[in-house]
Amino acid sequence: MGKKRVMLPMEDVDLTAVKYEREVIQAPHLTGFALKLFVWVVEAPLIGSLIMSFLKKQNKIVQLLQNTVIPEPPMFKPEYPPQELEPGVLIMEEDSRPVDRVESALKCLPLDDPAYRWDGGSSPSLLYWKIRDYAHAYRSRFVTPLVVAEHIISAMEEFNSKKPSTPLLISFSAEEVRKQAAASTQRFEEGSGDLYVYILIYDKPKDTGCAGNPLSILDGIFMAVKDDIDCYPHPTKGATTWFHEVRSVKKDAVCVSRLRSCGVIFIGKANMHELGLGTTGNNSNYGTTRNPHALERYTGGSSSGPAAIVASGLCSAALGTDGGGSIRIPSSLCGVVGLKTTYGRTDMRGSLCDSGTVEIIGPIASTVEDVMLVYAAMLGSSPANRISLKPSPPCLPNLSTYDSSNDLRSLRLGKYTEWFNDVYSTDISDKCEDILNKLLKTHGCETIEIIIPELHEMRTAHIVSIGSESLSSLNPHCEDGKGAQLTYDTRTNLALFKSFSASDYVAAQCLRWGKILISLNQIFVLGSHCIHDSTIKFFMFKIENSERQIQT
Amino acid sequence: MGKKRVMLPMEDVDLTAVKYEREVIQAPHLTGFALKLFVWVVEAPLIGSLIMSFLKKQNKIVQLLQNTVIPEPPMFKPEYPPQELEPGVLIMEEDSRPVDRVESALKCLPLDDPAYRWDGGSSPSLLYWKIRDYAHAYRSRFVTPLVVAEHIISAMEEFNSKKPSTPLLISFSAEEVRKQAAASTQRFEEGSGDLYVYILIYDKPKDTGCAGNPLSILDGIFMAVKDDIDCYPHPTKGATTWFHEVRSVKKDAVCVSRLRSCGVIFIGKANMHELGLGTTGNNSNYGTTRNPHALERYTGGSSSGPAAIVASGLCSAALGTDGGGSIRIPSSLCGVVGLKTTYGRTDMRGSLCDSGTVEIIGPIASTVEDVMLVYAAMLGSSPANRISLKPSPPCLPNLSTYDSSNDLRSLRLGKYTEWFNDVYSTDISDKCEDILNKLLKTHGCETIEIIIPELHEMRTAHIVSIGSESLSSLNPHCEDGKGAQLTYDTRTNLALFKSFSASDYVAAQCLRWGKILISLNQIFVLGSHCIHDSTIKFFMFKIENSERQIQT
Repeated sequence: MGKKRVMLPMEDVDLTAVKYEREVIQAPHLTGFALKLFVWVVEAPLIGSLIMSFLKKQNKIVQLLQNTVIPEPPMFKPEYPPQELEPGVLIMEEDSRPVDRVESALKCLPLDDPAYRWDGGSSPSLLYWKIRDYAHAYRSRFVTPLVVAEHIISAMEEFNSKKPSTPLLISFSAEEVRKQAAASTQRFEEGSGDLYVYILIYDKPKDTGCAGNPLSILDGIFMAVKDDIDCYPHPTKGATTWFHEVRSVKKDAVCVSRLRSCGVIFIGKANMHELGLGTTGNNSNYGTTRNPHALERYTGGSSSGPAAIVASGLCSAALGTDGGGSIRIPSSLCGVVGLKTTYGRTDMRGSLCDSGTVEIIGPIASTVEDVMLVYAAMLGSSPANRISLKPSPPCLPNLSTYDSSNDLRSLRLGKYTEWFNDVYSTDISDKCEDILNKLLKTHGCETIEIIIPELHEMRTAHIVSIGSESLSSLNPHCEDGKGAQLTYDTRTNLALFKSFSASDYVAAQCLRWGKILISLNQIFVLGSHCIHDSTIKFFMFKIENSERQIQT
Repeated sequence: MGKKRVMLPMEDVDLTAVKYEREVIQAPHLTGFALKLFVWVVEAPLIGSLIMSFLKKQNKIVQLLQNTVIPEPPMFKPEYPPQELEPGVLIMEEDSRPVDRVESALKCLPLDDPAYRWDGGSSPSLLYWKIRDYAHAYRSRFVTPLVVAEHIISAMEEFNSKKPSTPLLISFSAEEVRKQAAASTQRFEEGSGDLYVYILIYDKPKDTGCAGNPLSILDGIFMAVKDDIDCYPHPTKGATTWFHEVRSVKKDAVCVSRLRSCGVIFIGKANMHELGLGTTGNNSNYGTTRNPHALERYTGGSSSGPAAIVASGLCSAALGTDGGGSIRIPSSLCGVVGLKTTYGRTDMRGSLCDSGTVEIIGPIASTVEDVMLVYAAMLGSSPANRISLKPSPPCLPNLSTYDSSNDLRSLRLGKYTEWFNDVYSTDISDKCEDILNKLLKTHGCETIEIIIPELHEMRTAHIVSIGSESLSSLNPHCEDGKGAQLTYDTRTNLALFKSFSASDYVAAQCLRWGKILISLNQIFVLGSHCIHDSTIKFFMFKIENSERQIQT
């Protein structure tokens, strides 16, 4: 019999009395045979539930949901409360064509002259190009998508032949890439467009020869897609060995299809943590993707492949999914930019996580500008979410001018200092602090001190929510025998998720009110911008996990 | 290991292939010591979950949620898809004052001349009066609220002294009733109002002496409130023996407060099935309310007291709650009118079931007209639901004219004949058939044949949803030892609810798409009107349960 605890209503919590408590996880550290034995035992009917009960009790998971009177009613999906339009943003029409949104997004970007890269006349390498670099190169006939394709194909083949295997992509077809690149190249060769000047946002027109009829600035841009998002004709396995056997891919996911209509070339399906159920990217089915900046380190996960492929300089952008940090964590660990939007901003149809209440599909790129361009193309709520959530119109900040009316000044970044500093090494918090200072100096973004009460409760609520929703869609296949073909890592997680009760789930939803379900190792942005992103927001992550060595 | 089943997407279901299957429940019939022993065993940690697993397997509950691939994503709360305004309805402004809405509702009612009751000069009994009967009587100074109060007080005292106890109310204070009645009486005696003519909807003004300054046509109307809705200063126990110890009442529930602002007099808290977790009204804590039409029969539940008090003729109306038939069932069994609105139409703050996704508070009265008046006063979504559901404006059908443009013609009643006829006795289905014919003849409401696929699945989804949500709010108190003070009936239910897993809950929500969570023994209205009630709808119930004898 537990001891009843009564939570105060949100508005009555005394923030000065909140004490930060370091999260201590008490669980066995198992590998090899001991891990196999453990999984076998926790999957057994009675003894398994006893062990899970014990482990959950040790870590105060769930007990706290059952013993606690929570004053707020359940909020099952993140909501869009009425909000005034922020100053100086550009609305992205959800019903407009992706190419038109990309064109609008381009107007939001600061001026850029990619031509400087070639001013010396020497031939630059095809690595670490941004979207506008490619756009310039294609339009000035410096290079064609077909040439870039061959470069990527040979890089991929080299990568995939390495031993042990540490693939960036787990589904790749040189033929498919060549086909798309040829089509794009042809568009650039067709006729003579007048897009050039406009697209590159120069001050004044230049006479350096415009080329072709590209679909948009994204035409000929190479992207990878995480293996839980459909990208025809590739199978979607979620980096399992079997998911394509129970779910066939007949067309692109909605987001992929929108990007394709802008001319994006998809190079294949990027590696990930199996079914997204982990944050390291460790994957014993296909091999673990390595961090391009330090090959003995993890990329973070679950979108390990997408982040690594951008960090390796091969692609300007990639698509990941995020329900508990799966874009934010690998983006941080790989030093690239990832966008976790508000729930519902992107259409999840055609992804494996299309039934959850936390996951989104988001872009990963090497710069904020490229994230904005890709996001503009792919955004737009699903018809179902438009009915249930009635989201406010999405918009982008206008970064094209830097003056006193700079709109990033309206952003406030929340910092819970005790949590911020709770890191493996002060190197990490120092780096994060530097970024905050830079954001203040360059963009006028103020950092304010915040306190987040009930952190442990929110973590519990998050794992109960995402775990139960994942399990619910996996259950029929697992019950049918496929469960035993998952990695031991995943099977341990599923055994935990199976132990959550329906009333735990409902209680977890009661903790969503006015809070964000947040995941481990996350610093998050608080204030009027945190509840729903009417502008792109910056999420930063502690990067302590990258210290851990890859276990192969 | 189960056998995987794949459900078709809604739009692909072949309705001609749907086979109606009679629901067969395989569970032990237990009373007395055997029941106590059973409860003790199912509450035990391991053996209890084994027994529950067995019983659920026998009845195909839950297994089917785990083995089935459901194509639709979860819908956690009933939604309000965009809908055109129905013809000839009157919009009820949610932000207006309750008295103004009641005034608007009055304009929707057919003409009525209550004076005919007194034309003969003889003194009619104070039983079975409708709201407009009281309104006329008060305004013509035929009777005062204080006189009616004394009549009700003596009836209640007579009722409560009966052995064995079969109470209508479980919290009653003569003093409280007299206080409210005195205030109402004073309003009728103050000054001279000009409300009379307007309020009674006569064709032309009459000169029979208008009286006072009543707040609305509901001034001086006596109502009872189900014991899971706060009505200050009464405690709210949900007909348990202890709930008032863990949750104190400091003010009226929102709905009660709205009705009070219209002058309604609340006589006390009506009996119910303990915590609403049953449909008979059987209650061993306070005694079981009996059906006023046949004292050896059940009222149905869980709003047993509210339905019985209206059926007994003592009050014109009462408030109940309904999440699985709890207004509809007792209203049917007691021969009165109950309204189950769409989820979210009424504000649940101040009720015990304020955290669920199926429950509403609704009026029970002896006529549709009275239901409309009470509903107009109490309606209005909670601020939270206005953000999350963004409901379309509520409205009432205009019944004030009977002509060819009669708006009930736009209503279509759905009838699943095989289910409709699956009753204990054809007496029941014949009676229901008569009503359908009457609705067609009098109001032009057409009945159309419908087929409801996956009835069993929907029942399972419903019990998993309402059970888990109830358990989630009861858990902290039960874990604290109060669970053992509940009736054996309730404890058996809670043991079942505890066995539902979080992924069962999520799967259950996937079955809500385009369907209504429906409860046993219900005939429901299908078509454009079924998803959300922009007009008051008629719900009819099979009444086979009333055949069962009350077990005391």
